[in-house]
Amino acid sequence: MKPRRKIYMVAGYNTISMGTGRKEFNPKKERAGLEEYLKEAGQGTLQQIGGAKNVDEGVVGNFMAARFNNQGHLGAFMAMIDQGLRYKPSLRVEGACASGGLALVSGIKSVLSESADTVLAIGVEVQNTVKAIYGADILATAGWNKRRKDGHAYFFPGQFSDRAGAYFQKYGREKTRLAMARWYRNAIENARLCTTAQEYANVTDDLDEAGIAEPNPKAFTDFLNYTDCSKVSDGASAIAIVSEEGLKKAGIPLKDAVEVVAVGHATDDITSNPEDPTVMSTIREAVKIALNDAGITVDQLATIETHDCFSIAGLITLESIGLAEPGKGADFILEGNTSRTGKIPINTTGGLIGWGHPTGATGVHQAVTVWEQLTGRAGDAQINIPADKPYALSINMGGDDRTVVAIVYKKTM
Amino acid sequence: MKPRRKIYMVAGYNTISMGTGRKEFNPKKERAGLEEYLKEAGQGTLQQIGGAKNVDEGVVGNFMAARFNNQGHLGAFMAMIDQGLRYKPSLRVEGACASGGLALVSGIKSVLSESADTVLAIGVEVQNTVKAIYGADILATAGWNKRRKDGHAYFFPGQFSDRAGAYFQKYGREKTRLAMARWYRNAIENARLCTTAQEYANVTDDLDEAGIAEPNPKAFTDFLNYTDCSKVSDGASAIAIVSEEGLKKAGIPLKDAVEVVAVGHATDDITSNPEDPTVMSTIREAVKIALNDAGITVDQLATIETHDCFSIAGLITLESIGLAEPGKGADFILEGNTSRTGKIPINTTGGLIGWGHPTGATGVHQAVTVWEQLTGRAGDAQINIPADKPYALSINMGGDDRTVVAIVYKKTM
Repeated sequence: MKPRRKIYMVAGYNTISMGTGRKEFNPKKERAGLEEYLKEAGQGTLQQIGGAKNVDEGVVGNFMAARFNNQGHLGAFMAMIDQGLRYKPSLRVEGACASGGLALVSGIKSVLSESADTVLAIGVEVQNTVKAIYGADILATAGWNKRRKDGHAYFFPGQFSDRAGAYFQKYGREKTRLAMARWYRNAIENARLCTTAQEYANVTDDLDEAGIAEPNPKAFTDFLNYTDCSKVSDGASAIAIVSEEGLKKAGIPLKDAVEVVAVGHATDDITSNPEDPTVMSTIREAVKIALNDAGITVDQLATIETHDCFSIAGLITLESIGLAEPGKGADFILEGNTSRTGKIPINTTGGLIGWGHPTGATGVHQAVTVWEQLTGRAGDAQINIPADKPYALSINMGGDDRTVVAIVYKKTM
Repeated sequence: MKPRRKIYMVAGYNTISMGTGRKEFNPKKERAGLEEYLKEAGQGTLQQIGGAKNVDEGVVGNFMAARFNNQGHLGAFMAMIDQGLRYKPSLRVEGACASGGLALVSGIKSVLSESADTVLAIGVEVQNTVKAIYGADILATAGWNKRRKDGHAYFFPGQFSDRAGAYFQKYGREKTRLAMARWYRNAIENARLCTTAQEYANVTDDLDEAGIAEPNPKAFTDFLNYTDCSKVSDGASAIAIVSEEGLKKAGIPLKDAVEVVAVGHATDDITSNPEDPTVMSTIREAVKIALNDAGITVDQLATIETHDCFSIAGLITLESIGLAEPGKGADFILEGNTSRTGKIPINTTGGLIGWGHPTGATGVHQAVTVWEQLTGRAGDAQINIPADKPYALSINMGGDDRTVVAIVYKKTM
């Protein structure tokens, strides 16, 4: 989708991604809930745009508060964030781990429909309310209930382990395993530069060694290590989606915004299996639409935020979006192209493996990271944005390549 | 919101509202699940608009499949309905029992944003998977978790019983109880004219007597009877939301569509209590916006589909939207104004009490009923649409007056 009028994102805010790895995290102590995360992120954005009076609508991306927190109806928390939002339109959107991306799409459409000049988009998830194995059962609702009966106890790790196994068989195991370890190393190295990242304080000496260890199928899955997995996180991210008018109202100069130049949103059938487990076909479709509608090629991207729920998903995505030929994704990573100083820096604050994965928040977090990078706000994690590559791409995925939101952003000046 | 371009709804479809009261319903036998309901309703609409090739996007309104059916990610069921929808954008939206209305709002914005000419909007809920008391706990997630701890076991019946109690105290009990009984009688009489209604086969001789019986607080709530409550239902409803171009592509003449002339969408703070339990203030705000933006008064409405999750909600709504003065809602009902031959026929196929309340589907069902009435498709339930009153209104509510979607529709010719 090519926007019918100018549209921007501004005023991003991330809470800490909370969970194992953070010093503040103590599983036995009471911790912040949905309310605190929504408030912190929502108010963090409101403070940058002149307050609730400048907001016309709200949207919340959330996957499974229904089970993690025994709470539905999250759109109705907007006025809790700020009483100035009372009676304004608000809703929750959901597409499993793409819920955050869908919140962005929903906000973008509100602005394009001219029902709003400014939409407050928040993604949130608070998952550390249950043990990991029960959490896996909750997250498994992103897949088809009737198929889950036959799946792995850790359903999604099992799904992506199967993808890894198929990839190993087709293209070889050794180099792929090395590349997955490198993906992990890049993620942690980037996370160490971002104060809100869950792995910010990671002090592992040899990340390559940690990432290369052979999986222990009895403990987890056949082909994935814990280092291949995204984090179990609590967190929220917020950003404002605005028209030119909304930007003016907020008193924000154009240089502090990123332009949304195209959106690709694609959905596949949850009841079907991937035709080829070594391809992410819905990601391929969504990114193709986004790049086409933006009128650019993948080589014009300065950075990508991609959905590495598992390192193998990151690797296969590189091939499915045309950065590497099929079977050459591992080489592409091992040559250093995806590192923060490489040809195309990916997940510059750590991605889902390093920064964290508060599921319903992740899509919004990606947009916030892109906004930070393209406006020079990324602090220690700042990468160079070449003048001839003013574009960035985010890829947010729900389920096993079933719902995908891909957005192309442009530096404004 | 006043649409920035012409927008219509066409090709509605309702499944049966399944549950107690339907002859087909046997709680001990396996019944249709989400998949079957989504397929029946989705295909029912697709068949009327020339198939999936004419659909650009999909949206699913659903409240709590996460717990009723252990299933999230409902947007990814679109391509299961028809493989022609594969890779097209789709998402789920949620706002408790207003989820269906939010699906309509989301589809309307897609068309207004020009990202779609035709959106397939489906609402679905399959609730008879658990006993009523556990179902009440699931539905209670529409309220704030932290307040629910102090509430009634049947949380929402408890909330609306409290409203009824406050209303009785302020305006008197006897006449109000009579009006609630009449609301029930109207609902059942209308449902008996609609083959998909859950109370279609209701054979109670004396509906007034059934509705007037004094509540037994030990069995249920202080101030509400079972006859004051909406049904526990399984069901789905679908409708197509189209631009003029979408209407042409579907090959549907204008007379078979209804125009969407205005939308009012308002949200209140889920963590707060109603300021005055005898007023529905969010309904008041949403309807005010919808009528204002439509440029009409409540007297120009030929019919209203309103969210009578409990009869007292229906009664108070009449006052909050200006049909009756505060305290005069009971008189308005008892004078016969809301019956199918009255001044303003309300819930002409039975509403939530008579037709049924498959929660996430209800908002879409309301639109389908309006579409049927304004295009002369309502069969035995057809009411007269006066030439000088070509408008209809739907009011869909989530939680206790927290999320409201009000839509004004117009007969096209």
